[in-house]
Amino acid sequence: MRKVYFNGEFVDEADAKISIYDSALMFGDMIFEMTRSFNKEQFKLREHIDRLYASAKYLQIGLEEQMSKEEMIEAVNKTIEINAPFFEADDEHRIMIDVTRGLLGLYEDVVGTRKGLNIIIADFPLRWTVASMGMLFDKGINAIIPSQRAIPASLIDPKVKNRSRIHYLMANIQVSGYEGDNNWALLLDTDNFVAEGTGDNFFIVKDGVVITPEPRNILRGISREYVFELCGQLGMEYREKNIDVYDVVNADEAFMTGTPFCILPVTSLAGDKIGTGKMGEITTKLLKTWSDNVGVDIIGQIKGWGSGSTGKDSGAPTPYAFKRK
Amino acid sequence: MRKVYFNGEFVDEADAKISIYDSALMFGDMIFEMTRSFNKEQFKLREHIDRLYASAKYLQIGLEEQMSKEEMIEAVNKTIEINAPFFEADDEHRIMIDVTRGLLGLYEDVVGTRKGLNIIIADFPLRWTVASMGMLFDKGINAIIPSQRAIPASLIDPKVKNRSRIHYLMANIQVSGYEGDNNWALLLDTDNFVAEGTGDNFFIVKDGVVITPEPRNILRGISREYVFELCGQLGMEYREKNIDVYDVVNADEAFMTGTPFCILPVTSLAGDKIGTGKMGEITTKLLKTWSDNVGVDIIGQIKGWGSGSTGKDSGAPTPYAFKRK
Amino acid sequence: MRKVYFNGEFVDEADAKISIYDSALMFGDMIFEMTRSFNKEQFKLREHIDRLYASAKYLQIGLEEQMSKEEMIEAVNKTIEINAPFFEADDEHRIMIDVTRGLLGLYEDVVGTRKGLNIIIADFPLRWTVASMGMLFDKGINAIIPSQRAIPASLIDPKVKNRSRIHYLMANIQVSGYEGDNNWALLLDTDNFVAEGTGDNFFIVKDGVVITPEPRNILRGISREYVFELCGQLGMEYREKNIDVYDVVNADEAFMTGTPFCILPVTSLAGDKIGTGKMGEITTKLLKTWSDNVGVDIIGQIKGWGSGSTGKDSGAPTPYAFKRK
Amino acid sequence: MRKVYFNGEFVDEADAKISIYDSALMFGDMIFEMTRSFNKEQFKLREHIDRLYASAKYLQIGLEEQMSKEEMIEAVNKTIEINAPFFEADDEHRIMIDVTRGLLGLYEDVVGTRKGLNIIIADFPLRWTVASMGMLFDKGINAIIPSQRAIPASLIDPKVKNRSRIHYLMANIQVSGYEGDNNWALLLDTDNFVAEGTGDNFFIVKDGVVITPEPRNILRGISREYVFELCGQLGMEYREKNIDVYDVVNADEAFMTGTPFCILPVTSLAGDKIGTGKMGEITTKLLKTWSDNVGVDIIGQIKGWGSGSTGKDSGAPTPYAFKRK
Amino acid sequence: MRKVYFNGEFVDEADAKISIYDSALMFGDMIFEMTRSFNKEQFKLREHIDRLYASAKYLQIGLEEQMSKEEMIEAVNKTIEINAPFFEADDEHRIMIDVTRGLLGLYEDVVGTRKGLNIIIADFPLRWTVASMGMLFDKGINAIIPSQRAIPASLIDPKVKNRSRIHYLMANIQVSGYEGDNNWALLLDTDNFVAEGTGDNFFIVKDGVVITPEPRNILRGISREYVFELCGQLGMEYREKNIDVYDVVNADEAFMTGTPFCILPVTSLAGDKIGTGKMGEITTKLLKTWSDNVGVDIIGQIKGWGSGSTGKDSGAPTPYAFKRK
Amino acid sequence: MRKVYFNGEFVDEADAKISIYDSALMFGDMIFEMTRSFNKEQFKLREHIDRLYASAKYLQIGLEEQMSKEEMIEAVNKTIEINAPFFEADDEHRIMIDVTRGLLGLYEDVVGTRKGLNIIIADFPLRWTVASMGMLFDKGINAIIPSQRAIPASLIDPKVKNRSRIHYLMANIQVSGYEGDNNWALLLDTDNFVAEGTGDNFFIVKDGVVITPEPRNILRGISREYVFELCGQLGMEYREKNIDVYDVVNADEAFMTGTPFCILPVTSLAGDKIGTGKMGEITTKLLKTWSDNVGVDIIGQIKGWGSGSTGKDSGAPTPYAFKRK
Repeated sequence: MRKVYFNGEFVDEADAKISIYDSALMFGDMIFEMTRSFNKEQFKLREHIDRLYASAKYLQIGLEEQMSKEEMIEAVNKTIEINAPFFEADDEHRIMIDVTRGLLGLYEDVVGTRKGLNIIIADFPLRWTVASMGMLFDKGINAIIPSQRAIPASLIDPKVKNRSRIHYLMANIQVSGYEGDNNWALLLDTDNFVAEGTGDNFFIVKDGVVITPEPRNILRGISREYVFELCGQLGMEYREKNIDVYDVVNADEAFMTGTPFCILPVTSLAGDKIGTGKMGEITTKLLKTWSDNVGVDIIGQIKGWGSGSTGKDSGAPTPYAFKRK
Repeated sequence: MRKVYFNGEFVDEADAKISIYDSALMFGDMIFEMTRSFNKEQFKLREHIDRLYASAKYLQIGLEEQMSKEEMIEAVNKTIEINAPFFEADDEHRIMIDVTRGLLGLYEDVVGTRKGLNIIIADFPLRWTVASMGMLFDKGINAIIPSQRAIPASLIDPKVKNRSRIHYLMANIQVSGYEGDNNWALLLDTDNFVAEGTGDNFFIVKDGVVITPEPRNILRGISREYVFELCGQLGMEYREKNIDVYDVVNADEAFMTGTPFCILPVTSLAGDKIGTGKMGEITTKLLKTWSDNVGVDIIGQIKGWGSGSTGKDSGAPTPYAFKRK
Repeated sequence: MRKVYFNGEFVDEADAKISIYDSALMFGDMIFEMTRSFNKEQFKLREHIDRLYASAKYLQIGLEEQMSKEEMIEAVNKTIEINAPFFEADDEHRIMIDVTRGLLGLYEDVVGTRKGLNIIIADFPLRWTVASMGMLFDKGINAIIPSQRAIPASLIDPKVKNRSRIHYLMANIQVSGYEGDNNWALLLDTDNFVAEGTGDNFFIVKDGVVITPEPRNILRGISREYVFELCGQLGMEYREKNIDVYDVVNADEAFMTGTPFCILPVTSLAGDKIGTGKMGEITTKLLKTWSDNVGVDIIGQIKGWGSGSTGKDSGAPTPYAFKRK
Repeated sequence: MRKVYFNGEFVDEADAKISIYDSALMFGDMIFEMTRSFNKEQFKLREHIDRLYASAKYLQIGLEEQMSKEEMIEAVNKTIEINAPFFEADDEHRIMIDVTRGLLGLYEDVVGTRKGLNIIIADFPLRWTVASMGMLFDKGINAIIPSQRAIPASLIDPKVKNRSRIHYLMANIQVSGYEGDNNWALLLDTDNFVAEGTGDNFFIVKDGVVITPEPRNILRGISREYVFELCGQLGMEYREKNIDVYDVVNADEAFMTGTPFCILPVTSLAGDKIGTGKMGEITTKLLKTWSDNVGVDIIGQIKGWGSGSTGKDSGAPTPYAFKRK
Repeated sequence: MRKVYFNGEFVDEADAKISIYDSALMFGDMIFEMTRSFNKEQFKLREHIDRLYASAKYLQIGLEEQMSKEEMIEAVNKTIEINAPFFEADDEHRIMIDVTRGLLGLYEDVVGTRKGLNIIIADFPLRWTVASMGMLFDKGINAIIPSQRAIPASLIDPKVKNRSRIHYLMANIQVSGYEGDNNWALLLDTDNFVAEGTGDNFFIVKDGVVITPEPRNILRGISREYVFELCGQLGMEYREKNIDVYDVVNADEAFMTGTPFCILPVTSLAGDKIGTGKMGEITTKLLKTWSDNVGVDIIGQIKGWGSGSTGKDSGAPTPYAFKRK
Repeated sequence: MRKVYFNGEFVDEADAKISIYDSALMFGDMIFEMTRSFNKEQFKLREHIDRLYASAKYLQIGLEEQMSKEEMIEAVNKTIEINAPFFEADDEHRIMIDVTRGLLGLYEDVVGTRKGLNIIIADFPLRWTVASMGMLFDKGINAIIPSQRAIPASLIDPKVKNRSRIHYLMANIQVSGYEGDNNWALLLDTDNFVAEGTGDNFFIVKDGVVITPEPRNILRGISREYVFELCGQLGMEYREKNIDVYDVVNADEAFMTGTPFCILPVTSLAGDKIGTGKMGEITTKLLKTWSDNVGVDIIGQIKGWGSGSTGKDSGAPTPYAFKRK
């Protein structure tokens, strides 16, 4: 069975659990990161770790005092090493790092468990996260703008990757009522600019320029930043600016980015075709270059996992969609 | 060791834990209730249960389908019964009910643990929650309005008692920088009306009328409702209306309500005396009547627990305050 | 063929048209009212006329100077009289009064048509408006909150019944993507309180009290006011107050009011059952009393028209819903 | 008499009318464009057509499916050709294209007129639109900021050129109470940034840079875009950015752009002189270059039409101003 | 020459001055009250003093510690007594109390003047304040809603009667551009509800009920409170509630209240007649009763002062209006 | 004794006073500028004068008509010349220019003092303003974000340097409750972006780029502009953009700018270290270059004044901080 790093020790995946008196469960007070490998090499691990420590600093969780970034990277690597035997040859490692402030002071002595932060590193086969997404490279996502708005940075900053995000789930629930199997939520912020999906960043392409929302009421995604790198590599112009729904409706192309799937095309907005209604040329080029850079055929890999699915329900609710019973 | 009800079974308190792949930890997707006993009788248990089910309905957690309200009450009673031996004669039972949607679909099979909701009932000695509060009946709370605003109902509804509430913790952290040991956060909502504390409701008294914010961007506290009952009993007028900071500054009295402590006086706002600067007459009368009704000297009990403290740090961070290191 | 009153003359319904240079088509600058008959008697005609003149006053259309309220009522009656032969015995008259400021000054001479206001009164068989709604008395409306918000009173006041309301159509379009055939839009205002439907008012019932939004960012519907009268008649308490989504989810009953259909039950919110999921007791009693008061079995009449449909598509887009092709 | 293209046929201008049951009159659901000629050549027709189709796409009016852009251009040209005989030698053609969704479904059969979109092209002598504006090149516009705010893009997007715009008329009415004959409304958006006039875009010039509001809560005017082209041609810097009232008060120059008049100087804000209080150097140069580019002395032409006025009231209300009786 | 109470001493009116280094001039940090006499008896002096001390408390100016309310009243009376000889028989005393925090600490020693608060009481003939208002009882105020909004309570609370109110002056300037001599500003708050004038409260009358804005973003005027008393005396219903522009347009009557003039009718909104366009019945009755209660014919007195004007320009800018040069 | 320029004459500093009936004290209607010398040469005087006249224009104070900019500069120079004898060799001149609209019209004749504007120029030893700040170059400012928000430009524009700013004082009062002696307020605007201090501008440094808020809801400080010049001189990149709290927490360096002290490091936010927690490299370089440019060791000079303090309380409340008693 896969093992989870838990405060310096390794426990069975099924035992990776948090006390009900932990600040994580009392206040939604947990920060996290999720990274993936290409050919079993973690991608942009350093950038994810940097963001994790920035989240900790914002919330005044004393992570730096407890464990240096180098130690964190070492722990991630150790976790992958220990889990390697449980991964198939064509698997990739999806690492999830969770950090909590630990038990509320009140419970520290009474409950009699350990004091201080909980630092957890889990290693999970990426295939399960993305198995159901293969068809989206062809069909594209149908973005739906729910009534639920993104929470602005001033209330709970989405730049701090944290778990107080039940509003993402509410958005997914609202979207689940729409007809079709390719609906993903696209949130507006409270200024009614396009913000992000429920765990992914959003881009449009217009007149050859790659455009994405200003990094204000959104997570500053590592994949999002990598698209900027790819644009640089390809000599494409990119811009961060406020995007209205009008801009999406009249875009030439649109796509989402996220760690597990890298890039997925968005081909319609509430059923209204964006551009040609297929994955666009620039989107295709970006994903192709990404694949080349990392030496993995990203689309092929994900589609392969889907077909090789061992009977799992490919429509199982992921963080990106909610499935009505 | 105290036992926790966990999906129909009883586990040791130290083992009451939630998987890192549970929706509770992935999305802050947990609802809860906290009740207390007077003379070992749970107070307003039915009202708490009703609110729990209303929270579940809002978030479309299928609690009703899983367990009826009657079964829930029974489970609470069973939990108290089993834990009775671990409580001292002068203890009261503080019940915490947590409900989560369970593992995200993605992890249900892979992680190999149970599917569906987690329903958890923990029984904890109330004394630890309130041990440090005895002095507040004399000194009063110094309410501090932090920069952090309450999250409005349209984004994450505070009427749904849920755990995506890291902003409460942020408010507590901001307040922790103020001089003094009796500072509690008092949040404004995004319309800049007084909302609530970080786990308690707020009242003022002006010209003999008991006034509390409209039940919009706040939790509709059971203790808050009980104050209305007490007003009825005592023939006092009460009103729900929008409260400005000006109204607080120029109030005659002010107080907070919360399940563990019932009523605590607020005697100043950022150091600026409210009324006489002592627990007011009407506040005193309300708490006195509450004590009489339930047959417990509420102030005496809490003060008693403080002095009888078994060496615990009485300033330990509770959900109501954050302690700087 | 039915005739339409047009500035004092009667024209064929098919010829009731407005110049493209009219302020109505240049600026959406048209006010209107819609009334219906019970047993061929117009209901609350005076109240509708009063509101029409209030709308005119707000927009500084000089209606009063052109035509007194008494003359307007007379013109309505004349229109009904002239159209009576074209109505079947079981028909009811649905009167629509439109008033526009007329041609923009620029076009008055050049286009060579008349100067000044256009006052139009059309008489249409109510049956076509409501033919498809019979099933909603049983099934109830599934209210959907779209991303589109109501326009606040400060920008275009909905209390002024006017035609600059393309946002209603946008809301209907957004809702049309949901699964099911009983979805109607329920708009939030920009404060995220429940406002109204796209041409109807919204009510909930909670603990025996009939509650409807404060008359701020909504049309102050005549049917809405009549529900207050009915409550008075039945000794029921009613209240105008801000309603959150939470209040709708946890209401005991809910309904919509509108001139053509009077009252329709709302039995779910985005698929989440409200109360029993059927037309509630109090809703039923209100509609029953309305029927008694006007001497028409309102439900029976509408259901009758549906079954007696002469081949019209019962799902044809009405002002209340948009039908995807 | 001039003819209007109406769904493929040509009707007399006085007969170009829309049914009262059309979506245009029921919901303000009409999109439009207005273009003008220079020396009888339509200016930027392609850009206007593109914007028309973008508006249609946003509102999900199936214009593209009904008529291609090329067919639309052909129809415009045909309309001009047919109307040529009715235009004097020094006239220019002002084309207005209106598109509506057609009758609401409910009325399609009952009223017995045609189904589907209405596509209308009217050709009108530009002179009447601008006859009263000649003096504004000398005197300049006195911009007045009314209490009425622009409707933000999230409610009714002004980038979609549509007729639900009674708020423009309200703004004009509010401004009509000011002393003077050169007052035009300048709207702030709900963020209190300068937005636009009621049918025109606004620019300031500061330290040699041409500045106009970000294209968010405004129509993205074709004349506005052409000013950018002119700046390029003249080697002037231009910028889209948020403009505060302070920036207007302390600007060096200001001007409005609009299809009929191209550029008009704004020489004061509520009577407070902007810059020298006369049409500025850069404004003059822009308009001069525009004139050169199109081979028409724009100021001379408009002034000429004013003096050659055939007795029309030169102060007749245009879309830009409202005249009190 | 009239004398001004200045920190316990009496100085000539022309010498009643504040250092440029006083907090009043550095921060607009001055609170004040204005009262008037009827038959030389100060009206509601106690209520004004209470409000002054509430303002001081809010701003943490230590007024209470410096001077008791009783001493303040005594000082007012002393000031009137000393000035009595300078007042004519038909004059009334208009008392203005100003309190400032005094010199900023930085300047206390360096500038070498006194430390601590400045408490100033000035006694001024009421006639000059109201001399130009006599005609308004006949003609009524034409209320104009400027673009300038009231500052909400959360930024600078208008309930604290203070001098940081340059926005009132800006509103008056904006209104001064309107045609006519009876224009007064009527401010909306940032929620676009009617707030108040620039130094006066606003009321409407509808269906016999006296209605005034909720006491949130307005000064809670003493005259406003007295209207409630008058309503009680006359058995009229009154209500505090949010008022939209629509409510004003369609009101039966409207009026302003203020200490110097008591009640003035508002007979139109931006030229659009309210009710009959004359001082309404209920307004008249309220003012009549006020006159009776205080034994002064309020209208007669003010009109008398106007006609007896000693050559002063009756249109001189008062705090309520700004006069363009 | 130092002399103050007062409408063309020179009066003793202690006699530089404003009538209580002046618009400055009735409405907070005073504009001002503060400049300082280096080696007794005023710095950027012209820029300050330009801004003063821009403020006057915005508020429609007819300053330009009264006194030209050249005359103003001359008056400043004359004031310095006259005061030179009262300044020590190591002193610098801190000039404060105040302009008020003068007595309200109502009081012009009655009070019998002069009509029209008051123009005042005071010359004060800079040392007193900054004497207590020397330690901040080492310790740095601990920025605290109070609940009080900056007033947005649409209500009272902070770009207009005026005295209606009691909210700055309120912010200072709120911050004064925090533990420590180096707390300065850092205001958010009502969009919750970082705005400014209470009399100073704010900068962060991130990845070598100097970043400061967009010049919207802030004073466009002359020192702020000079930092841009310094960046140019040093080949550093700088940017104006919206700054979130997150950006401050994770900045490399931060600093405040203000006329008296030029640049002060901000080393923590509410006790949470920014960067190294010491004055950063780039901050140091900027201040060093400033010192070099003006020929004054800015840090040394200020520290020197502190140690040479003649017994003044170095913690005396300045405009930047409020001291609790």
